[in-house]
Amino acid sequence: MHKDPISKLIFELSKLPGIGEKTATRLTYFILKQDAEYSKSLAQALLDAKSKIYFCSRCYTFTDQDPCRICANHERDASLLCIVERPADVFSIEQSGTYRGFYHVLHGALSPLDGIGPEELKIRELLERIRKNGELIREIILATNPSVEGEATSLYLIRLLKPLGLKLTQLAHGLPVGGFIEYTDRQTLGRAITHRVEIHS
Amino acid sequence: MHKDPISKLIFELSKLPGIGEKTATRLTYFILKQDAEYSKSLAQALLDAKSKIYFCSRCYTFTDQDPCRICANHERDASLLCIVERPADVFSIEQSGTYRGFYHVLHGALSPLDGIGPEELKIRELLERIRKNGELIREIILATNPSVEGEATSLYLIRLLKPLGLKLTQLAHGLPVGGFIEYTDRQTLGRAITHRVEIHS
Repeated sequence: MHKDPISKLIFELSKLPGIGEKTATRLTYFILKQDAEYSKSLAQALLDAKSKIYFCSRCYTFTDQDPCRICANHERDASLLCIVERPADVFSIEQSGTYRGFYHVLHGALSPLDGIGPEELKIRELLERIRKNGELIREIILATNPSVEGEATSLYLIRLLKPLGLKLTQLAHGLPVGGFIEYTDRQTLGRAITHRVEIHS
Repeated sequence: MHKDPISKLIFELSKLPGIGEKTATRLTYFILKQDAEYSKSLAQALLDAKSKIYFCSRCYTFTDQDPCRICANHERDASLLCIVERPADVFSIEQSGTYRGFYHVLHGALSPLDGIGPEELKIRELLERIRKNGELIREIILATNPSVEGEATSLYLIRLLKPLGLKLTQLAHGLPVGGFIEYTDRQTLGRAITHRVEIHS
């Protein structure tokens, strides 16, 4: 079906999210214009990423060493545990530079219609982890996505974790930095008003 | 500097045009979620594209066989020769499905400030080709980009080709299909008016 190498590369690239045939074509011609060095190192990076990366046995994020760099870092705050849906969320929160605790990756959110129940997520592993390190953990931050599935997962976890007597928190909702009130959806604006923060001068 | 495989893949992907670090990160996590099969076939497609693709010795487009599939197709109209800047332009015109002649890829446009003169483009090869197949070619379509460099290249070629007595044409300028008059820039709109087409009922 895809006889020639150019069509094949366009076809493979267009499987990536947000990359249609037109962008894939543009990327392919860009790659063909570069030195062979670039396509080689991109190909190698692809193979390495997939073959050398597995899940951390503690927090279940992607890692090339076990425990991962975050779990192995003794300077981090062991009293904080942040629960996220995806490894990409760990990356995003790390990039924000505002969190120094540990993580636990659920690998999804509850979605009964898609057949994803508590058993499909790393919830058993989370409880096991809290049981083992209970005396260290003081606060659990529920950082699931502000979507229907994410909020359902948070509610499920709140019910599960509340009896353990730990402090439970969730990420603040509100206006995006650099955003406009005019273009903010009603729900977000409503939460930003409800959870308004006092200005200390 | 880029110790771990995830950062390395993000780094390599973010060299692609229009792909910043944020998109590269999203793509990387997408790739990590897929079967190993996908990263392998994408890596192979990258290596194949770069190692198996070279320039057609006739039209200078990218090809994995010489002459390329277009030049080797005897059913195409040998009386038409379309001159384009880049191999990607050949692809785009082919996708439009409206042209059945042959191509000649210049590999750039005249840009004295960037040190690109006629010698850097496949113009000598073009003249040689016309000299050899002069009796077959009846029309030369100048399909350079509607940019300063593209139009300068067209003007240069017109001066060069006019004495050969061939019919010279260029692509029509005008409103993009599906576009709005209100949002069309003045120059394009001006050309669309000047070159308006009579309606035959």
